[in-house]
Amino acid sequence: MNFGSDNQTGASRQVLEMLTEANDGITHGYGDDKWTGRAVDALRDVFECDLDAYFVPTGTAANCLALSCMVQPWETILCHSHAHINADESTAPEQFTGGARMLAISKGAGKITVEHLEQYFANVGTHEPHNPIARALSITQASEAGLVYFIDELTSLCTAAKEHGLSVHMDGARFANALVTQKCSPADLTWKAGVDVLCLGATKCGALCAEAVIFFNKELAETFVHRRKRAGHLVSKGRLFGAQFLGWLKDNHWLELAAHANAQAAKLAGKLATFEGVRLVWPVQANEVFVTMPKGLVTALWDAGAEFYDWYPDVRPTEMTLGDDDMIVRLVTSFASRDEERVEFCERIEDYLNKN
Amino acid sequence: MNFGSDNQTGASRQVLEMLTEANDGITHGYGDDKWTGRAVDALRDVFECDLDAYFVPTGTAANCLALSCMVQPWETILCHSHAHINADESTAPEQFTGGARMLAISKGAGKITVEHLEQYFANVGTHEPHNPIARALSITQASEAGLVYFIDELTSLCTAAKEHGLSVHMDGARFANALVTQKCSPADLTWKAGVDVLCLGATKCGALCAEAVIFFNKELAETFVHRRKRAGHLVSKGRLFGAQFLGWLKDNHWLELAAHANAQAAKLAGKLATFEGVRLVWPVQANEVFVTMPKGLVTALWDAGAEFYDWYPDVRPTEMTLGDDDMIVRLVTSFASRDEERVEFCERIEDYLNKN
Amino acid sequence: MNFGSDNQTGASRQVLEMLTEANDGITHGYGDDKWTGRAVDALRDVFECDLDAYFVPTGTAANCLALSCMVQPWETILCHSHAHINADESTAPEQFTGGARMLAISKGAGKITVEHLEQYFANVGTHEPHNPIARALSITQASEAGLVYFIDELTSLCTAAKEHGLSVHMDGARFANALVTQKCSPADLTWKAGVDVLCLGATKCGALCAEAVIFFNKELAETFVHRRKRAGHLVSKGRLFGAQFLGWLKDNHWLELAAHANAQAAKLAGKLATFEGVRLVWPVQANEVFVTMPKGLVTALWDAGAEFYDWYPDVRPTEMTLGDDDMIVRLVTSFASRDEERVEFCERIEDYLNKN
Amino acid sequence: MNFGSDNQTGASRQVLEMLTEANDGITHGYGDDKWTGRAVDALRDVFECDLDAYFVPTGTAANCLALSCMVQPWETILCHSHAHINADESTAPEQFTGGARMLAISKGAGKITVEHLEQYFANVGTHEPHNPIARALSITQASEAGLVYFIDELTSLCTAAKEHGLSVHMDGARFANALVTQKCSPADLTWKAGVDVLCLGATKCGALCAEAVIFFNKELAETFVHRRKRAGHLVSKGRLFGAQFLGWLKDNHWLELAAHANAQAAKLAGKLATFEGVRLVWPVQANEVFVTMPKGLVTALWDAGAEFYDWYPDVRPTEMTLGDDDMIVRLVTSFASRDEERVEFCERIEDYLNKN
Repeated sequence: MNFGSDNQTGASRQVLEMLTEANDGITHGYGDDKWTGRAVDALRDVFECDLDAYFVPTGTAANCLALSCMVQPWETILCHSHAHINADESTAPEQFTGGARMLAISKGAGKITVEHLEQYFANVGTHEPHNPIARALSITQASEAGLVYFIDELTSLCTAAKEHGLSVHMDGARFANALVTQKCSPADLTWKAGVDVLCLGATKCGALCAEAVIFFNKELAETFVHRRKRAGHLVSKGRLFGAQFLGWLKDNHWLELAAHANAQAAKLAGKLATFEGVRLVWPVQANEVFVTMPKGLVTALWDAGAEFYDWYPDVRPTEMTLGDDDMIVRLVTSFASRDEERVEFCERIEDYLNKN
Repeated sequence: MNFGSDNQTGASRQVLEMLTEANDGITHGYGDDKWTGRAVDALRDVFECDLDAYFVPTGTAANCLALSCMVQPWETILCHSHAHINADESTAPEQFTGGARMLAISKGAGKITVEHLEQYFANVGTHEPHNPIARALSITQASEAGLVYFIDELTSLCTAAKEHGLSVHMDGARFANALVTQKCSPADLTWKAGVDVLCLGATKCGALCAEAVIFFNKELAETFVHRRKRAGHLVSKGRLFGAQFLGWLKDNHWLELAAHANAQAAKLAGKLATFEGVRLVWPVQANEVFVTMPKGLVTALWDAGAEFYDWYPDVRPTEMTLGDDDMIVRLVTSFASRDEERVEFCERIEDYLNKN
Repeated sequence: MNFGSDNQTGASRQVLEMLTEANDGITHGYGDDKWTGRAVDALRDVFECDLDAYFVPTGTAANCLALSCMVQPWETILCHSHAHINADESTAPEQFTGGARMLAISKGAGKITVEHLEQYFANVGTHEPHNPIARALSITQASEAGLVYFIDELTSLCTAAKEHGLSVHMDGARFANALVTQKCSPADLTWKAGVDVLCLGATKCGALCAEAVIFFNKELAETFVHRRKRAGHLVSKGRLFGAQFLGWLKDNHWLELAAHANAQAAKLAGKLATFEGVRLVWPVQANEVFVTMPKGLVTALWDAGAEFYDWYPDVRPTEMTLGDDDMIVRLVTSFASRDEERVEFCERIEDYLNKN
Repeated sequence: MNFGSDNQTGASRQVLEMLTEANDGITHGYGDDKWTGRAVDALRDVFECDLDAYFVPTGTAANCLALSCMVQPWETILCHSHAHINADESTAPEQFTGGARMLAISKGAGKITVEHLEQYFANVGTHEPHNPIARALSITQASEAGLVYFIDELTSLCTAAKEHGLSVHMDGARFANALVTQKCSPADLTWKAGVDVLCLGATKCGALCAEAVIFFNKELAETFVHRRKRAGHLVSKGRLFGAQFLGWLKDNHWLELAAHANAQAAKLAGKLATFEGVRLVWPVQANEVFVTMPKGLVTALWDAGAEFYDWYPDVRPTEMTLGDDDMIVRLVTSFASRDEERVEFCERIEDYLNKN
């Protein structure tokens, strides 16, 4: 019964096989190899445009290197208060950007809206060099609440951002999950909507360790290779990443993996919604399910060996009240989630609720 | 009619005279001179304790050097959303701390309260090394809204901070103004209440360029001299600061200067409160007056040559509504403010209101 | 004919098999898994002591994170002028340490000696906070010239370093190669000689992407987990590193891989030394061969598809003269080097020399 | 008998008077005042060109802010091994530049030469992003050895620097002293020779605390105001600097002050050269005198209350040998040096030598 995180699996079989194949033979280091080259080509095909792409080992590195190309050290980055870059990456953004500032907006909301942006700009000083000026907006797709930015709202958000002089970064640790929810192309959901840089995470959805920083706005990439090297993220045997991405993208494998995870989340949410005392906090649009549960139930599930995390009580719709006995928990499904563990999890809940 | 800022004056006569006196003669550089030594002694007398004190040219340097001694680069600093360190010092705190994070709490409030602190800690992750952990609280005395932290609330705040493992920094750019409002000693309002480090600003209240970083908690000072030097803030002719502080502290000169500024603010506020259409945003407790005015009046006053700044519309008591035609403005008095300019200012308002 | 670098191979079969095995199943992220735990235990066995060990993806990350635990931002690091950290890692050391300074000593020498250290300290200012003070010595084992620090000289160097208040970092990208050259234990060549922190590189000698930062002096590790996270080097699927190290260390596999590489280098050097016009620059003690060659020969070899790099003309013994037509080149062997490519390489040289 | 440093004086009378005059009245802060404006105009007159100039409190701030505008964090700065920025400013350059690297060339020489530059470039890797690339050359005028870069050699050096893609920074802490030695204009000795940025120090030569960063190459100034603010070096009462510079430049006052200091040095050197056992290390071309003395004499002079520093034994002409009993000492004269102290100093030496 593992709903802890989608980073608790290994690589999918197809990804591992490509990695094993690439392991053979002698090739140049530092990404100057055919695997890396073909992976970049594959990304250009998938996103239907000429783009610059670079591979790094972690999502934190991807996000923070990207942001360091987008702001000066005296500028600021707007993001959701529970964005991974703001809440879960220590002060890595400050480290990589040389001390730019993270500014959390949208506290408590499921997604950043144009209104959040406008409210920010209505109340901020713009007297340079005294007031730090916002220069980038970071959006997480799927969002911190497991929600999806649909094309229309994404386009509006990017448009508003650009009117205020911001470039747009997308943390796509679960981009595949957000994409398969919608009937649109990868291009539609990124550069066509106004995204400048996408950090496309393969690790959470089938790779072992592979993240791509994709610059649709290639001017922003100018200093990237220096920044990556200097941060110790230029891996010598670059085929490691190239091979994983090739295996991941081949024959829509990535989308199938994401679709499986999403389907598992949808089924889980569907069942959970039938229990009295369990409430969905947000609609389920990707592979994360946020629900409220009585504390006793949470404990009982943990005792039974279920893996999942309790979540921040202030990340919920404004209109939702939380009882003294309520906890919010996060349940994450993955490409490796099995029907059996979902069924067992729900049975445990049923048992507990019957007895209490 | 100058109410723009208390940094638009020169030095007071007494401060300038001491500086002129100190200018003579040959002495060691870098603070190893009698003027600096005597100034530190004077601070020890004033604060009635053994303390470490260092002088720097600007408030930004004082605040940020102090904070850099209080947090690691992967930790965070809690402060008011309109604190000078957060809103008006570019990203200097990040620069000096090596990339620690500023976290604004108390948005819209006049002061930080214990409740703000508790609310922060109730909703934040503490999973290291993923979540950045708060390690310092910064309080501005007098506050961003011209309010004073009274001894009781200051003590409560410091106590709460320490229960959460925070050390306490006080930005005292207007400490003298806050002090003379209360019947208490400098010691009462700092280390006795739990303040670890005070940045005591003389510049806004009678000096030309002199700020002291005062460590009541001397352990925090361990790396200060390295940090100051490395930031380019170790001035070679250190007597510049020593002499100013000596002149400033001598015979309670600093308190008299502050008392004058505060009295001017009180008289100004008293008169303004009598005008229909002008509302005090916050009680006046130091040398800053925040009022709402009709936009037309603001423009008329500016046209007449009055100096003052419009202020952020979201910095006001929750219960106060702002009409479409209302602006918030900030009026600052100083040791050099004259009755004449206040009187003229109020007459201009009266004229305008009579005509409109 | 590949002598370009020992990072141009994939992983050894045994390492890849362990990685494949570890890929299965669900496990906690961020190194909280059995593979990582067992790998740390294996390192404790190998080094016969209680140590702290952390895994990261690159040698640059390993070296620079280690150094960032050893010096303050206002201190300096002494190293060989051609150390990888000084010459080949961009300004990563400055990035990770928050701006400590790299100081190259031993210019032109094959190894750092006690005399180099003493000469440095005889001519440097120690007036704090003005003069930056040296606090760490970094040694590369095997050295920048392919030489080995033998136990005696290593011990002397560490002793001298400590007398000057330096802690000792060892860049062990080719530690295995240096170890198998000597009849001593891993413990003898590290902590018993006075090394505080070893960056043990598996990547160049049989892994795909795995480096360990090993703290024999555990006090220095205090802030490591924060620094690693903040630099984006905490990989979510930590088994990636744990499994590689387990496979690498198991049954002395690492030593056999290194021994093969060294034997190939020795044979290559032995043959090269027989050619007129080709001179060994340094004795061959690990898996790198530095020789001088006529420029025409270098070109001919490159034209024939041989892979190797030309090297810095100033890295050679003082007494060695370099003719106008001489180039220094570096030839690196690896665990995957084959007799056939060495033989072909030497035949090409023989052919060229016969014809010219 | 003060020959310790030219920063041990106060301000000259004329500078102090201008400062006193400027102290009166209300004016805008942060350099938006007439004194600052007039000082910048005065600099444009003096240097006969359109330039950007900014004022800061210390030479370290001036140098390091300037350099931070000239290199990226992954680039390097070439300078003399005993340059103030390299030896005496802690690791401030790294702090301000975000971790660019200082590279000392010209070890032991009195000035940097074109040959030093060429030798550096002949032996350095240029493989980006691995090798950090040099992007700025910093020259000290007068030099670390009290020597002057004459127009011809300065021009050659700047030309060579630019051929290698370097911009040129001049640390002009003693620029006035170097200027009056030559028959040329300030323009000749800076932008006409190829200097991009001059840090013009007034503090050592008559001001109390005033340094100007002068951009002849105005493109390099693009980010300066952000960097200065963020480093805490934007002083609120900017007239402090404007007034000092105005007083300093007015009626060639700065040149007269420098000429006095230089004349004192010349007389001192002339006399010292007549003593057996005392040798001039370098020709005296500005206001610093470097001599060797027997250790006993040094001690005797210190005991008699003379102020001066011993110097690094490796900063001397290659051909000069140093006996076991020899020390190198540095004697600095200033605008305030008096004949009496020089005469007394020489008499003490004479006495000692007669007795020993």
